[in-house]
Amino acid sequence: MKTYQPITPEIIEKLKAITGPTYVKTDRDMLLQYQTDYETNPAMFHVPDAAVSPANAQEISEIVKLANEYDFPITVRSGGTSLADGAIPVCGGLVLCMDRLNKILELNEEGMYMTVEAGVRTVDLQNAAKKVGLMYAGDPSSAESSLIGGNLATNAGGLRAVRYGVTRDQVYCLEVVTPTGDIVECGRILKKCSTGYDLEQLIIGSEGTLGIITKVTVKLIPLPPYRFDVLAIYTDPRQALHMVPKLMKAGIDPTSVEYMDNSYVRGCADYCHYKDMPHYDDGIYVIITVETFHEDELDTKMDAVCTICEESGAAEVLEADDRVWNMRRNCQTSVELQSKVFLTDDVVVPVHKIAGTIEKIMDIGKDYPFEVKINAHIGDGNLHIVLCKMDMSDEEWEKNVEEFHQQVYAYAYSVGGRLAGEHGIGAKKLKYMEQFTPKGELKIMKTIKRAMDPKDILNPGKVIDA
Amino acid sequence: MKTYQPITPEIIEKLKAITGPTYVKTDRDMLLQYQTDYETNPAMFHVPDAAVSPANAQEISEIVKLANEYDFPITVRSGGTSLADGAIPVCGGLVLCMDRLNKILELNEEGMYMTVEAGVRTVDLQNAAKKVGLMYAGDPSSAESSLIGGNLATNAGGLRAVRYGVTRDQVYCLEVVTPTGDIVECGRILKKCSTGYDLEQLIIGSEGTLGIITKVTVKLIPLPPYRFDVLAIYTDPRQALHMVPKLMKAGIDPTSVEYMDNSYVRGCADYCHYKDMPHYDDGIYVIITVETFHEDELDTKMDAVCTICEESGAAEVLEADDRVWNMRRNCQTSVELQSKVFLTDDVVVPVHKIAGTIEKIMDIGKDYPFEVKINAHIGDGNLHIVLCKMDMSDEEWEKNVEEFHQQVYAYAYSVGGRLAGEHGIGAKKLKYMEQFTPKGELKIMKTIKRAMDPKDILNPGKVIDA
Repeated sequence: MKTYQPITPEIIEKLKAITGPTYVKTDRDMLLQYQTDYETNPAMFHVPDAAVSPANAQEISEIVKLANEYDFPITVRSGGTSLADGAIPVCGGLVLCMDRLNKILELNEEGMYMTVEAGVRTVDLQNAAKKVGLMYAGDPSSAESSLIGGNLATNAGGLRAVRYGVTRDQVYCLEVVTPTGDIVECGRILKKCSTGYDLEQLIIGSEGTLGIITKVTVKLIPLPPYRFDVLAIYTDPRQALHMVPKLMKAGIDPTSVEYMDNSYVRGCADYCHYKDMPHYDDGIYVIITVETFHEDELDTKMDAVCTICEESGAAEVLEADDRVWNMRRNCQTSVELQSKVFLTDDVVVPVHKIAGTIEKIMDIGKDYPFEVKINAHIGDGNLHIVLCKMDMSDEEWEKNVEEFHQQVYAYAYSVGGRLAGEHGIGAKKLKYMEQFTPKGELKIMKTIKRAMDPKDILNPGKVIDA
Repeated sequence: MKTYQPITPEIIEKLKAITGPTYVKTDRDMLLQYQTDYETNPAMFHVPDAAVSPANAQEISEIVKLANEYDFPITVRSGGTSLADGAIPVCGGLVLCMDRLNKILELNEEGMYMTVEAGVRTVDLQNAAKKVGLMYAGDPSSAESSLIGGNLATNAGGLRAVRYGVTRDQVYCLEVVTPTGDIVECGRILKKCSTGYDLEQLIIGSEGTLGIITKVTVKLIPLPPYRFDVLAIYTDPRQALHMVPKLMKAGIDPTSVEYMDNSYVRGCADYCHYKDMPHYDDGIYVIITVETFHEDELDTKMDAVCTICEESGAAEVLEADDRVWNMRRNCQTSVELQSKVFLTDDVVVPVHKIAGTIEKIMDIGKDYPFEVKINAHIGDGNLHIVLCKMDMSDEEWEKNVEEFHQQVYAYAYSVGGRLAGEHGIGAKKLKYMEQFTPKGELKIMKTIKRAMDPKDILNPGKVIDA
């Protein structure tokens, strides 16, 4: 990794001239809030030299040009909800906060799109659409606290991707400040386009390494008026997992297919203080949501879902009420009850390989001193593995995590999977990215990064080692 | 544009050593077949110096490395159905034909995907999926003769994009030979992915300038068993066009919404020898297709479609039979009856701007000596404007076409549109690409092209002037 120049008082003065002095922070106590994101392991924390909160793309452009001139790194901070150390300034330098770009600029009902600044909270965007009977279909579990720009940067997935796709599928166009400081609009509000390279999709998912997203225009779709939520409880994980392909081929087009292993069922019920959850002791929960535009269609599909679940061996098939969804949404936070330091991993495999993958991971986990907890968006092959440090020593923890990951990632790649389905690579998985990505692919990525960001100014130490 | 080295006898010998002598052509009479694609204007034709038909990615890789070593350009030829001079070797050099890469490699019903070589005909891929009750949703009008690699290269759209999206939405992953000769797999069979840059979407739509696609894995979806096709006939184009937003917001999720102006209705009916087509003299045809998984749903949606059409002023609402679809599919070829040389243009605008755009284009057309014919995928804002040379002189034709285009493109860009919705830029629109694309966007595209193809070997003279 390259050596950068320090942020000098001269640079600080220039930053203050761009944003006004209020929006530049250099006090170490103030900067501590930017040393981490959702990372819980203090060994990974890093305090920046300064932080700045620009008001708009123009100011960001000036800051990026300054960074190129004085050769200091910029780490973009969106909602700070990264689970991959994406917002940690691992090379020091400047943290650039997006929270002041928080305006909804246009909601066009006829054109069915919404244009917002990148710092708008995902949930605010969802709610604005809902108010006019439309839907923004992106729905990461972090919607309450993540910002839409961060959703794009990591190509966030979440709970409704089975039907509606991931964040990249929700985007018409975006405005980006390039690594050399140009302000560029990529994409347009078009359903078809064959006019040059698809730059918006290249920027989406690049985790801030190819540009700072400042504005986003997302697709809105009609809000389906009918919905049902089924909770299918299994006692054998294989039966739960082998139900999925049948569901996907039945033309039901479910919105969500969520999986919580029994460890999560118990942990989340405890965390939410829910007594008497069915099969608390031995149940694996699969939540299936279906949305329709017609009542008849809803009835037909509900019958079909229940039949598929029963025939695949479900112990019980119930309506999934708010409690069940609340448990699902608290999977992440419920772990805090168990262990102060824990690690949430995010692996993705082809949907038809998820059953084998979960079985394999549980099998691998038996050799390790930590409990392996799994929740998964099984409808899209994306699983989250949580490991708890508990009272392990740092050395023991690091060693076991490393060995476990080597085994899990090697297996995932052997069945056509990848390191991350929705959390991104960040700093946390950089070394695995170098290890597991086929050489030719990595070469193209580095060629693009070096060409677009010749001084490696934006988010260095993330995604790839350029 | 740079000057390349000629293809010498030494190079020909090396090409023959790679593919075997049978697959290298240098005879001028044989090479004439590669001087054009669907281009009808001889002024645009260009005969290559040689043509080669490699068997696989390995041979293509060796040919590309040879081109880098000896500095000659390669133009990739897929089905040769480009309407944007995409397959014309405008810089001479070598034409590389994809027709020998024609094998379906795997159809995985459980995983719902199909892997094929890039030279498989689109229709063969569609039919292979249908045979097992699944659907490949890409459906360009040229499906009978285009090859899947060409569909990806131009991000082909077509008739079912309203519901299923364009070609880029159908692709899980691809194998590409890079401009420097590496063989790289981009993407995987994953529903979610946040593991580095989205290279597959960058390659898709790059019209062979960033790599030669050699293998493709496409998504398959369940084949909806129920379908209806409505023909709504209007006599006022505004009424037809203003119906579209209502249709899109009603939760009907139509598969196709196609528009033929009265000139096409008459031309296609004549071409197909159909007598007594309703409203032959004054009708504008809008064809609406809806597919469902349940019969009840079909009935409900059919009622809704008919009501929307009637309330928006349709003169007649009928079932669209095979004749109507046959007319629609022959829009392009029917024009040949009218004029030996004609120009099919492809412009895309936001869906909610299509009514105003078609009205504007008809208005612009009044000042020109050619008849302006319009058919459109109005459900996705994509329109095709056909101009017929008839017996105009070359000079008069060029001058009028140029002036007409300047007006049409300027208007399209003013409402957020783009030069091409599905045909690509090719060589034909290169100069407009330079003229109309915002500078910052063009700069990123050229940066990427130069970094990935430093010697400008692949498809020079197409998309951008690198």
